[in-house]
Amino acid sequence: MPKYAIGLDYGTNSVRCVLVNAANGRELATSVWGYEHGTDGVILGNDPNLARQHPADYLKGTEVVISRVLAAVKRRTKGFRSDQVIGIGVDTTGSTPLPVDDRGEPLAFKRQFSRNSAAMAWLWKDHTSVAEAEEITQLAKRVRPHFLAKCGGTYSSEWFFSKILHCLRTSPKVFDAACTWVEIADWIPAALTGTQGPEDLTVGVCAAGHKAMYNDEWGGYPDKRFLSKLHPKLGGLRDRLRQKAHTINRAVGGLSEEWTKRTGLPVGIPVAVGAFDAHLGAVGAGISPGTLVKIIGTSTCDMMVAPLGKELPDIPGLCGIVPESILPGYYGLEAGQSAVGDIFNWFVNYVQPGGEKAGSHESLTKAAAKVRPGESGLLALDWNNGNRTILVDQRLTGLLLGQTLYTRPAEIYRALIEATAFGALTIINRFEEYGVKVRQVINCGGIAEKNPLVMQIYADVTGRPMKISRSAQTPALGAAMAGAVVAGKKAGGHAGYRAAQKAMSGLKAKVYRPDRKAHLVYRELYALYKQLHDAFGTEQWQGGLHNVMKQLIDIRTRVRT
Amino acid sequence: MPKYAIGLDYGTNSVRCVLVNAANGRELATSVWGYEHGTDGVILGNDPNLARQHPADYLKGTEVVISRVLAAVKRRTKGFRSDQVIGIGVDTTGSTPLPVDDRGEPLAFKRQFSRNSAAMAWLWKDHTSVAEAEEITQLAKRVRPHFLAKCGGTYSSEWFFSKILHCLRTSPKVFDAACTWVEIADWIPAALTGTQGPEDLTVGVCAAGHKAMYNDEWGGYPDKRFLSKLHPKLGGLRDRLRQKAHTINRAVGGLSEEWTKRTGLPVGIPVAVGAFDAHLGAVGAGISPGTLVKIIGTSTCDMMVAPLGKELPDIPGLCGIVPESILPGYYGLEAGQSAVGDIFNWFVNYVQPGGEKAGSHESLTKAAAKVRPGESGLLALDWNNGNRTILVDQRLTGLLLGQTLYTRPAEIYRALIEATAFGALTIINRFEEYGVKVRQVINCGGIAEKNPLVMQIYADVTGRPMKISRSAQTPALGAAMAGAVVAGKKAGGHAGYRAAQKAMSGLKAKVYRPDRKAHLVYRELYALYKQLHDAFGTEQWQGGLHNVMKQLIDIRTRVRT
Repeated sequence: MPKYAIGLDYGTNSVRCVLVNAANGRELATSVWGYEHGTDGVILGNDPNLARQHPADYLKGTEVVISRVLAAVKRRTKGFRSDQVIGIGVDTTGSTPLPVDDRGEPLAFKRQFSRNSAAMAWLWKDHTSVAEAEEITQLAKRVRPHFLAKCGGTYSSEWFFSKILHCLRTSPKVFDAACTWVEIADWIPAALTGTQGPEDLTVGVCAAGHKAMYNDEWGGYPDKRFLSKLHPKLGGLRDRLRQKAHTINRAVGGLSEEWTKRTGLPVGIPVAVGAFDAHLGAVGAGISPGTLVKIIGTSTCDMMVAPLGKELPDIPGLCGIVPESILPGYYGLEAGQSAVGDIFNWFVNYVQPGGEKAGSHESLTKAAAKVRPGESGLLALDWNNGNRTILVDQRLTGLLLGQTLYTRPAEIYRALIEATAFGALTIINRFEEYGVKVRQVINCGGIAEKNPLVMQIYADVTGRPMKISRSAQTPALGAAMAGAVVAGKKAGGHAGYRAAQKAMSGLKAKVYRPDRKAHLVYRELYALYKQLHDAFGTEQWQGGLHNVMKQLIDIRTRVRT
Repeated sequence: MPKYAIGLDYGTNSVRCVLVNAANGRELATSVWGYEHGTDGVILGNDPNLARQHPADYLKGTEVVISRVLAAVKRRTKGFRSDQVIGIGVDTTGSTPLPVDDRGEPLAFKRQFSRNSAAMAWLWKDHTSVAEAEEITQLAKRVRPHFLAKCGGTYSSEWFFSKILHCLRTSPKVFDAACTWVEIADWIPAALTGTQGPEDLTVGVCAAGHKAMYNDEWGGYPDKRFLSKLHPKLGGLRDRLRQKAHTINRAVGGLSEEWTKRTGLPVGIPVAVGAFDAHLGAVGAGISPGTLVKIIGTSTCDMMVAPLGKELPDIPGLCGIVPESILPGYYGLEAGQSAVGDIFNWFVNYVQPGGEKAGSHESLTKAAAKVRPGESGLLALDWNNGNRTILVDQRLTGLLLGQTLYTRPAEIYRALIEATAFGALTIINRFEEYGVKVRQVINCGGIAEKNPLVMQIYADVTGRPMKISRSAQTPALGAAMAGAVVAGKKAGGHAGYRAAQKAMSGLKAKVYRPDRKAHLVYRELYALYKQLHDAFGTEQWQGGLHNVMKQLIDIRTRVRT
């Protein structure tokens, strides 16, 4: 009798549940539920930087999607019984911290905070905490530079302590009412297993390591003295954070009776430690040493792993190097491009080239496919939303060069695609420069699935085959794998991730192979891209142009205020 | 009884005649006639670089427009008699050389050459002679560097000897049948006065000096030895070119009896030495020392004059510094931008932003007017068609920088306007760096007349008032002034150009004055523009980006062939 695992994937606008055959990864049913609060699930404010979520959506969504998936499988699969489900895994956005009381209940559930957005989950893309991020970066640079070496040199406004410090400064009542703050990647598994109390809570190393400067090397989260320098109360919070963070091969507990009642799943089945969507997505795509998993959407995450035993240098420009954040036994390495699909969307939706008919992604892609490499004379930088890896500089902007009086939209569209491919190659090169060899590239996400031109250009630019993950929902698949692993081999799951990946993940038959002639042209173009990249993005030579984009932003900011 | 002068303006697609009151410049009648041959008057070939004109169009057009203008004035002005017309001036495109026989008749008029495009007028924008231009430049660099110092350092494929040498190489029968070659600026006045025979022909210093390396300093046209090195037969042609070129205050002769019959104008009225449209346009706009005349169309001509007596250095990057090419007694200085209106047209017609309704010049201008200086964070280079002044480099291309995920078309449109304004300021600065002070700027051309936003941005960027010429057809007005000057004061014309300009040219009441606040922002933006300009356009510092645009063009050329 087949055994199944459930993956729960909490995205920005909705939660997805997938029920997977643990033996072969086959996805039997999927259900998606859009969050009820706010706009498409995101609570906005007057400040355009504010983005919050109501935690009630996570709970209601969980109940809805699991129930629907079970109902669908029962309808379709003769003899299916819910006790064939052996484990659950959870992935979420992040850093998305949530203030909770001394029983682990969200403050947002209390009447006095029910309409206070500071008491909600602070969604990953909330950018209210820019000043606090800068403050944390500056302090760490001075007194704890090693904290920053593992997270690309800059502490982000999107991350855990920036948000908490901003809450402390701007909504002190919420801060004071909170016993502690929990990433939703940790809070949701805790809620499903009834372990959300501060003493029972299990936190995952993925969120803690990538977003909260957690590292066993220095005793877990940043020390109390450091946090107290930011604010004495933040130092106080340190005592209420967990001492130890765990990997995804551990269960936080068994499904509680309450959640058994709400979903119909067997009581006590293990729920794995939660992790971020990109990380479990990499697991679902089949990440292992030598494999780069690219999750390509509006932006990208570029994930690799490297064995824990071997010395690994700090790699400048990576978003994070965290032991066991992706796979147990390996360093998790996270890089990324700040915008990929978003750049193409900008061109289509904002510039709207060529009138209504000619300017869709489909027609531009079709016309761009007819332009040969190098034929347009155009070259672009992929920095419309800054540069995450390798420059870690959000104050960089886009650039297009080479236009004549006859340059057509399709040529620009292709140049933008090529620019993101050059950005992708720069990340691959950075990994390899620091000894992390890239032996294969697996792509996932909507663009990888739907746009063959993009994948062919990536193959031609990098000179490497581009493979595509078989599953269209690798984060949820990765979460289901975690469920199967924490269930264990005896229960019909797997002894570990190597076995789970071997059984459950796979590639599509179609592989995009580099065209030799195109690659030779792109090698020349990449040399020019790199010249622009270094001229505008680094201070490496005198008389450079490192100031230009930043001064324009300074002027823009001054003029607008 | 008022006296009138006629200006004849031979453009790329049509000839225009304007009849002007010599006392006050009032334009009584205008007539335009489109050339009959080719496409809009331009004879094309399989080679997209080929652009010729049939000289019969000049003659037929002259007859038509003069007759129509006289008929119109007679209808409207009571008592008008054609003997009130005292002189004629001619301006044309150039360099547009025409092969003629030993009586000065165009070869194109002979049966055996009547369908041979090499026997036609080689229109200014004919680019078939790129290789010959390069050959002439290289030879001059080696053996006659002073030739190039006066024409911006490069001999162009658009110019006199490039075209003749190309004809010699590719259509030797035409070359051999030609007694000599004449710019249409010289040939048309000669035809009207019956002085087109090689011994009677008068050539103007404007065409000879700017396009044929004529200079009294080195004895007129390039020496026979130099031309013989290019081809012995070109050396042979040197003997049949005129020894001396003349200024526009000289008449080439009186209107012939034949042309009196064809037009109804008085026999013998003087026809002035011809000149190029931009040069007589500058005269018509009121050029004098300290006045920069900007003729703004698809590209610009930026014209100044400087007294002949005073030492004038070679000014690097100017298209030409030619004694008396604009006004007698002054050096004529010609600079220009390779594309201005053409860049805006590219954005509207090729990129077609914002769909059909939102993407017109009118609506983009309206939206761009609401964007404050510096507010978009964008910066562009105005090099979509290369850079004429001050870099003299056709292999430069466009650049747009600073785009985000939210950049709108109107912001780009404004950035393109600003880029052309920065290019205009760079030309002003170049004049002043070499001691040619710019005390006022007078603009003419369609954009200057019709787009107040462009003029306001030019004022704000340069920090100088932008004045607009009163006449909408300054080349034809300038030509009419030449007619009034060669007629002389006694006949009811003028003793010289100072008097003619004082009487006949003027400014519109509207002056665009710089906004102090905007100018301060633009000073900052211009510093950044100049940084990009020097980085991509010059080799002034090591590790620069001078190679980037050129290498892209090399790759493009290779890929396309």
